[in-house]
Parts: sequence; structure tokens; C-alpha cells
Amino acid sequence: MAQNQTTSRQKLDKLSDALNSGTLVDARRMLNGLAPGDVAHLLESSSPKFRHILWQMVDIEREGEILGELGDDLQAQFLEDMDAAEVKMLTVGLEDDDIADILQQLPGHVTREVLSAMDQQDRSRLERVMHYPDDVAGGLMNTDTITIRARLTLDVVLRYLRRHDTIPEMTDNLIVVNRSDQFIGLLSLRTLLVSDPATSVREMMSTDVEPIPVDMPDTEVARLFERNDWVSAPVVDGNGKLMGRITIDDVVDVIREDADRSLMSMAGLDEDADTFAPLARAAPRRTVWLGINLLTAFIASSFINLFQDTIEKVVALAVLMPIVASMGGVAGTQTLTLMVRGIAMGQVQRNNEFWLINRELSIGLLNGLLWASVVAVAASLWFNDWQLGVIIAAAMIINLVTAALTGALIPLLMSRAHIDPAIAGGVVLTTVTDVVGFVSFLGLATLFYA
Amino acid sequence: MAQNQTTSRQKLDKLSDALNSGTLVDARRMLNGLAPGDVAHLLESSSPKFRHILWQMVDIEREGEILGELGDDLQAQFLEDMDAAEVKMLTVGLEDDDIADILQQLPGHVTREVLSAMDQQDRSRLERVMHYPDDVAGGLMNTDTITIRARLTLDVVLRYLRRHDTIPEMTDNLIVVNRSDQFIGLLSLRTLLVSDPATSVREMMSTDVEPIPVDMPDTEVARLFERNDWVSAPVVDGNGKLMGRITIDDVVDVIREDADRSLMSMAGLDEDADTFAPLARAAPRRTVWLGINLLTAFIASSFINLFQDTIEKVVALAVLMPIVASMGGVAGTQTLTLMVRGIAMGQVQRNNEFWLINRELSIGLLNGLLWASVVAVAASLWFNDWQLGVIIAAAMIINLVTAALTGALIPLLMSRAHIDPAIAGGVVLTTVTDVVGFVSFLGLATLFYA
Repeated sequence: MAQNQTTSRQKLDKLSDALNSGTLVDARRMLNGLAPGDVAHLLESSSPKFRHILWQMVDIEREGEILGELGDDLQAQFLEDMDAAEVKMLTVGLEDDDIADILQQLPGHVTREVLSAMDQQDRSRLERVMHYPDDVAGGLMNTDTITIRARLTLDVVLRYLRRHDTIPEMTDNLIVVNRSDQFIGLLSLRTLLVSDPATSVREMMSTDVEPIPVDMPDTEVARLFERNDWVSAPVVDGNGKLMGRITIDDVVDVIREDADRSLMSMAGLDEDADTFAPLARAAPRRTVWLGINLLTAFIASSFINLFQDTIEKVVALAVLMPIVASMGGVAGTQTLTLMVRGIAMGQVQRNNEFWLINRELSIGLLNGLLWASVVAVAASLWFNDWQLGVIIAAAMIINLVTAALTGALIPLLMSRAHIDPAIAGGVVLTTVTDVVGFVSFLGLATLFYA
Repeated sequence: MAQNQTTSRQKLDKLSDALNSGTLVDARRMLNGLAPGDVAHLLESSSPKFRHILWQMVDIEREGEILGELGDDLQAQFLEDMDAAEVKMLTVGLEDDDIADILQQLPGHVTREVLSAMDQQDRSRLERVMHYPDDVAGGLMNTDTITIRARLTLDVVLRYLRRHDTIPEMTDNLIVVNRSDQFIGLLSLRTLLVSDPATSVREMMSTDVEPIPVDMPDTEVARLFERNDWVSAPVVDGNGKLMGRITIDDVVDVIREDADRSLMSMAGLDEDADTFAPLARAAPRRTVWLGINLLTAFIASSFINLFQDTIEKVVALAVLMPIVASMGGVAGTQTLTLMVRGIAMGQVQRNNEFWLINRELSIGLLNGLLWASVVAVAASLWFNDWQLGVIIAAAMIINLVTAALTGALIPLLMSRAHIDPAIAGGVVLTTVTDVVGFVSFLGLATLFYA
């Protein structure tokens, strides 16, 4: 079997060939034979021009599904040129949370137009999802739940299901509610299939699952899914009333974005930055980031400037000073990265942060002592000046301990102030390690050589 | 409902209080009332001493499940002190891939002992999974598949299922195989529940799903799951024979690790580093990383050393030179991070990498021109020397363009050589931007002021 089947990668390669050789009819047929996720991946992996050609070739009834799989950045680009009628058309057959995502990207008047063109039932269902920001449970949920009552027998449930044309995707549980629509428990399809049809839902349902509050932050929802290995989970309001359900496919997107956020923000990039964004979109944020860095670099320089006389006397100081600053930056970044990840995963809390700071300080001190000795020997031999060796060793120890302390404290303080430590942590850190590195090294040198 | 229920977070907080106040009996009861994933999270969020106390309090029959949820690093720590009999006991009731993970962490003789204590059937099933490294499909799979034949009617399938006590977790599809056990198609439980019992499996199964080859890398498996929104997928060998199935909970771990890998390796950390590792475990890798950085810092310094005479003449050069190097480092890191992520997500390929390099060069040039002008004015005014302004501007443009080129090329070349660009990319990059920054700035200055 396997060797006769073309894998999705091979299909993508073939499509690429067809496009490059200009056989557009073939390419179009192949493109529309791909899964929506594959088409989205292809769009995300293409340069703007190529991307535009591909999008033109997508069958109009598949546009919505494909759009739902794209990152926010790219979604916005394609939606930009659409009017309300086009948007309305592509929402057909999409899940509520995907439609809500799309509508939230549009200007207010287009959103209102699209909503008013929907029938009452669709509109009120959508408004329920759109009522919540897309970073809490309510914004992630769909309303396509199948609910049953506890007093039914499994046999009745089976017959009830058979009256459906389809069961929503990712349905692993039926949701048991009372007459006020409040969540009571879950009956898994797996249980339904192996149990005696004469037993009641009440006997077979599991009641030990906690439903997700509608206002729970999405990162916490993701952690619950990860820890409990859920495929789907019910969402309830403050009164325990069932609002909808969240499915693992949407949670996977949250996990991916979450993990990307730290990596991208630490380099001053947008977390869902489009890799192939055209120049005009890619440059601005990075330019601002460089500007901020320039400012901090000038601050560090102004400290060096205080020691002009000493440098003039001993030029070797200018040669060696970047080493002290650089080691502090690298050591601090290690601590910072570990803390940022620990905070993002909810591991670092008030009761254990003191232990962490302590350990980081110890590592800083140990590494400081070790590498300071190496640097001391190297510098003494290089410039044939043991004083220089002592000075740089002392500066290095001071800077590595400072780096550990700063790298640990910045993210703790920032997250306490509800600022994402990944975004600005690195800038603050390297400013501190540069300044402390230069000042300790040049300052000590001034004392010694004065 | 919701407000009467204690959420998992509240439970964790209560447990924490009980532990801190020393009421160990309460704490033990609470701990063993938590889901395995929650206990794992608690262990991962604790300092070594506290962790040891917690682990002692875990009911012995829950140890395996909890161990399965822990990161590799921590798993290894707990397994260290166990003998074969203890390991054997805790594997009871675990899934194959989790047992394989645990066994692969143990010394060879313990693994053999545990395996030989199992019955023939368990052992051969496990050996099938352990035959594959844990970063390919074969290492991720479980063997708990329910297979059916295409000629059966749905009614027969329903009765066949009812003979089971339970259906394996995360079963969304039954797997249809032929008499040689080769994969033919999938019959979803959802279809089974709504379709006419008189129809045959052949009529209702879907055959357009590609099974996963047993040797597919885990990151590619993860991408397939993400793009196709799968809950589980069948795994086949080269002859199309069904080997097992992969479930989304294991894929989520791959996605998480994958995303973590870039973040952590860029700072020279282990991707599944334990946040609360004791000093002796946390320090070594970071020490090595600092040593490598020290070497590169000395290389950069040796280039500064070439220009001692010029610096002695114009000390302002020493004051300003870190600015040029730092801007190059930051700009290069932005490009590098974007490329590392693009490569990790499979977006960057041969047919689009030229476009990307081109765009990065353009951004480098534009940012170079912009910030060079700003720096030129600032430096000229600061040191009242317009020559200095011209020199630093030229050096900054040279270094930002170099940074873009290096940041783009390093990850492309490394991934072509099958080296993870996240691991060493940053070191190579900053060495280049430091050297080019110092040499261009000091070199130009030597020409001007000579």
C-alpha cells in the first residue's frame, strides 16, 4: 500500500514542479486535491507573488476552510481585499471559532454587514463566541455540542444518534446536562459502544471531569488539555450552564503559538510573524527594535566614555572589555530563557522562585570563578601584565553574578507587572550586563592604574 | 456547578498549603487525588528537596502513570535509584510508547531484566516499539489498535465492540485491514454510530487517509497531525502492514518539545532542561556554552588588538565600537530566529530561500541606512567630529548587511549539513557580527586618521 501512495510531501513537490513549469491547469487540479492544511502550509511557504497566484487558483468554496488554517498575519492579508459578500460566502461550513477569528480581523462595518446577512440562529450562536476575546476559553469554543439527559438509557441514546446525519468532528464524548442546561457529566462514545444498552446514562457517565470556565485564559486551557490528555472538553459559564466545547485541534494551535511567542519575542519579532512577509510588513517592527537597541548601546557607550583617560593609558583595556560584557550577556540570557520558559509553563511560582534565584546565583558564581581564572591567565600572558589579569577576572566574576541576578529578577518582576518577560527582558538584561561589565572592568582598571 | 467545584489549580494551591504547614497526611491524600498530569506538573515545579518528599508520598501504583507524564530529564532522575523489580511494577497499565521511553532511559542490563520478567506477548509488543528510535513514528506508536475487516456489516462491528471491556483511549477510528494485516482504510466511531447497521464496512470506511510510515521523523508526524486535525493515525511498515497507531496526546508532546528546542538551544540550554534541576545537573552544559563564547570573544578581541595604535590616537573609537557590534548582533539574531523557525516548520525550501535571503538583505540595507544616519549625527555631535560620524555610519551599514546575510545563510547551510541551526547558529553569528563590526569600524578609522 504505502509505496503506491503518494504522500502529501510528494504531492506538494509535484505541485511545485507544475507551477514552475507553468502548467497551470495541472497545478490547479493538484492544488484543489490537497487537504486544506496542506494548502495553508503551501501559502505560508511562498513568497508574496507566488502566494497571490496560488490563492487565485483555490476553488472559491474551499477558501474558508483554508483561511481557517492560516496564521493571523496571513489571514489578515487575504481578507483585506474582500467585501462583506465574499466573506459571508467563505464562512459557510466553517466552525464557529474559526468564523469568529475571521470576523474579528475585519473592520467593524464589514463584520456587522456579514453578521446581519446571516440567519438569526447562526448570528446569535456566533455572537456568543465573539462575545469573548480570542485568548480565553470562550473565544476558542465551538457550539456544536451533542447533549443528552442523564435519565435516558444507552439504547435511547444510540437511537437518538442514529437520527443524526453526522456527529461533529472530534466528538469523543456526549455531554450530559440537566433541564437547565447545566453540565453534569460526560458519556464517552467508547463507553457507549461497549456498555449494556439497557443501562442508563447516569450509571455510565463520568462526573469527575471539571468543565472549563468560559473566561479561563487560553494558555491555561492548553495546560489542562496537555495534563489530562483530552480530545475535547465542555465549557460552562459562571452558573455551570453549558456554553460549548473546545477541541484539541484548536488547543494545538494555542500550544504552538505559546511556544513560538517566547522564541520570537526574545528577538523582537512578532510571534505570528509571516516568514515570507513582503518587505513593507516585515521591516517596521524590526526597525523599532533596532532603534531601542541603539538607545541602550549608547547608554553603555556613555559609561565607557567616563573612562577615556584610563583607556588612553592602557589600550589593552579596549581590546579586552568586550569579553567581559559578552560573557555577562550570554550567561544572563541563559538564566532569562530558563525563567521565561518556566513562567510560561506555569512552573515558577512564589514558593519556589527564591530557590531558583539562589541556584542561578550559585551557577553564576561558579562559572564566574572558573572562567575568570582562565581569562586571567590568558590576559596576563597576552599583554604580559598580571595586573590586567586580576582586573579582568574580578570584573568577570562581578558581571556573571550580576547577570544571574538580573536574568532571574527581570522576568519575575515583569510577569508580576503583567508584562510578557520575553518581549523586553533581553534588552534590559544586555543593557545591564554591558554597563556593569564595562564599568566594573574599566572602573577597577582606573583604581589600579591611576 | 462550576462554582462548587474546586478547580485543579485550587487543589494544587491547597496541597501546597498542606505541605508547607506540615500536615502530611492531608497532603498525601490530596496528592493522590490529583490527575497524573497535575502531579507531574507539581513535581516539575518543585525544588529537588521538595520533589523528593512529594515523590515519596505518591501511591506506588500511580508512579508509572505519573512518570509517563514527566520530561525525560526528570524521568531519568527518578529512575536512577530503581531496580528492575520496581521498574517492572510501575510499567503495569502504561501504554507501550511510555514503557519504551522509560526502558530506554535505563541502563541496558536493567532493561533486559525488566523485559525478561514480562510475558512473551507483552515483551514482543514492546520490542516492536523499542526497535525504533523515539524520534520517529515507530517510537511514538502504541500497539493498542482495534482492527476490523472490510466485508463485515456495521451491525457485526457493533456487536464485536460490545464484546470488549473497554476501547483504548483516543480511539476515534477503527482500522480496516486485509487478511495480510495491511492497512486499507478507517471507519470512524462517528460514522459507525449514525450509519445504517446493515451497510458494510467497505461502503462506509474512508480510504483517503495516508497511513504514517514507521520511519517518518516525529516532527513530520506532528505536522501531519496539525494540518489534518487528526486525533489518531495508523502506522504502517514498508509493505503497508499495520504496525500500530499514534495518538494526539503524544504528538502534542512532540510539538511542545519541538517549539522549545529552538528557544532553549539558542541560549545553549538543553531543550528538555528541568527548570529546577539541582546545581550539579544545571551547571555543566551552561559552563561549556560559556567556554565556547569565551573563545569567540577572544577571537573578536584579537581583531581589535590589530588597531591598538588607532585607538590610542582616537579614544572615542573605543567608546563607540560596541555600538556597531551590538547592532549587528541584534539584527542578525532577528534574521536567524526567523529562519530557524521557518526551517523548523518546514516552510523554507530550496525554491523560496533565495527570495528570503534577498528580502533579509533589503531589510538589512534599509535599517542600515536609517540607523547609520541617526548614529552619524549623534556621534558627530557627541565628539564634535564629523569624520567619526561618517566612519561609524559606513561601518554600521556594512555590519547590518553582513548580519542579514550571515543570519540567513548560517541556518540554511547548517540544516543542509544536518546540524540543528538553533544550537550553534547564534555563536557563529555573533562572532561574525562582532569581528566585522570591529574591523570595519576600526579599519575605516585607521584609513581616515592615519
